[in-house]
Amino acid sequence: MRLDVGYDGTEFHGWQRQPGLRTVQGVLDEALSAVLGEPVRTVGAGRTDAGTHARGQVASFVTDSALPARAIVPVLRRRLPSDLEVREARETGEGFDARRSAVARRYSYRLLDGPDVLWQRHAWRPRGTLNADALCAAVRPLEGAHDCAAFRASGCTALRSECMIHRAGWRRWEGGLLLDIVADHFLYHMVRNIVGTALRAMTAADPARAMSRVLAGRDRRRAGPTVPAHGLCLEHVFYPRESLS
Amino acid sequence: MRLDVGYDGTEFHGWQRQPGLRTVQGVLDEALSAVLGEPVRTVGAGRTDAGTHARGQVASFVTDSALPARAIVPVLRRRLPSDLEVREARETGEGFDARRSAVARRYSYRLLDGPDVLWQRHAWRPRGTLNADALCAAVRPLEGAHDCAAFRASGCTALRSECMIHRAGWRRWEGGLLLDIVADHFLYHMVRNIVGTALRAMTAADPARAMSRVLAGRDRRRAGPTVPAHGLCLEHVFYPRESLS
Repeated sequence: MRLDVGYDGTEFHGWQRQPGLRTVQGVLDEALSAVLGEPVRTVGAGRTDAGTHARGQVASFVTDSALPARAIVPVLRRRLPSDLEVREARETGEGFDARRSAVARRYSYRLLDGPDVLWQRHAWRPRGTLNADALCAAVRPLEGAHDCAAFRASGCTALRSECMIHRAGWRRWEGGLLLDIVADHFLYHMVRNIVGTALRAMTAADPARAMSRVLAGRDRRRAGPTVPAHGLCLEHVFYPRESLS
Repeated sequence: MRLDVGYDGTEFHGWQRQPGLRTVQGVLDEALSAVLGEPVRTVGAGRTDAGTHARGQVASFVTDSALPARAIVPVLRRRLPSDLEVREARETGEGFDARRSAVARRYSYRLLDGPDVLWQRHAWRPRGTLNADALCAAVRPLEGAHDCAAFRASGCTALRSECMIHRAGWRRWEGGLLLDIVADHFLYHMVRNIVGTALRAMTAADPARAMSRVLAGRDRRRAGPTVPAHGLCLEHVFYPRESLS
């Protein structure tokens, strides 16, 4: 079974179930188990950090329950808190695993270009003024297949640091600029480290060159700081036979 | 003295000070009194409801303190909670009163056109699908000088129900559609009643005519329902010699 979920990550200790902490997976599994009358354990496509949001998280689970997918959503909704939303439930083929079947993920990172208390849970305001042209130039070298070890946080358990970045670009949103990035997979803190590096490259004489050097160096110590989790949102997870738009 | 403030209204019981309740004015006055070492009572340009947000609220107060405006902001910021932000403090002429000196206000009301847990504190999702053309047509008759008694909630204390609506229009925002409305003054619940009426007019054969009839009828009972407070935001307050853009 496949569930499409969204959440405001502010009050969650991230996606992954952890004893004694309020996590998205923990709250979701508990509600699902109650609805289906059996212990359920979901697999999430992306393990978002504490404070990180999701609009397009996908979770999969296996159940013996005969309850059809369309009957699950309304019952489940009544059990979920207002900051966790189930958009859709679908029956899937046997082998479907939200994490392993995914072929790409899309994340957004929102920067504020001025004080704005309205978006403070969903966007981060760096010091100084945003330079849109320089930020766009800084992320251009990212598109393509790269060893992204420079953006890999310590504690990352991924076996390979090669990523295929299908798209990386900034666009305007109401509060400032938003990084829109699609890749086959992401390393631990990768988007947050890319944004920190792009902000540093923004003030370089040649932002694209500054980013290219960091990328080629494959050394986390040469990249920029990790920006806060709350600007980040998992927007979409792609599965086979879906266009990467 | 003039203060420009913003707040996320979710955790406040509105602007106006009320004993025993957490209100914006209450929290602001307490912090100001502590900073200036004397009891301070602010006047707010717009008395926003519980749950309503502000980006451009203006407050004025009179003080005997010799502390210059530029020194107030950093000290005040340290005393204010994260959902209440002081953007600027300015010295003003003697007669300045944030409420009485204002010549116009701009409000926004955000509608969601699908489920989106990210914006649930700042936007409201009506039932059904939004029809942008019909909504735009529905608010067009509002521009100009009108008796707005149809949109006046019971309990409104304004002496006159005539309003000069400088602008009323919808535009796209990330989550759906946003009503952008500027008027010299607003009656109690006026924007929320206009949105409720526009949504009802949206499904009429002639949305502009449906709205015009409600407006001309001057009867609150013929207008649509009051939509929830949390989609509303006081965006800006205009003072003399400022263009109404």
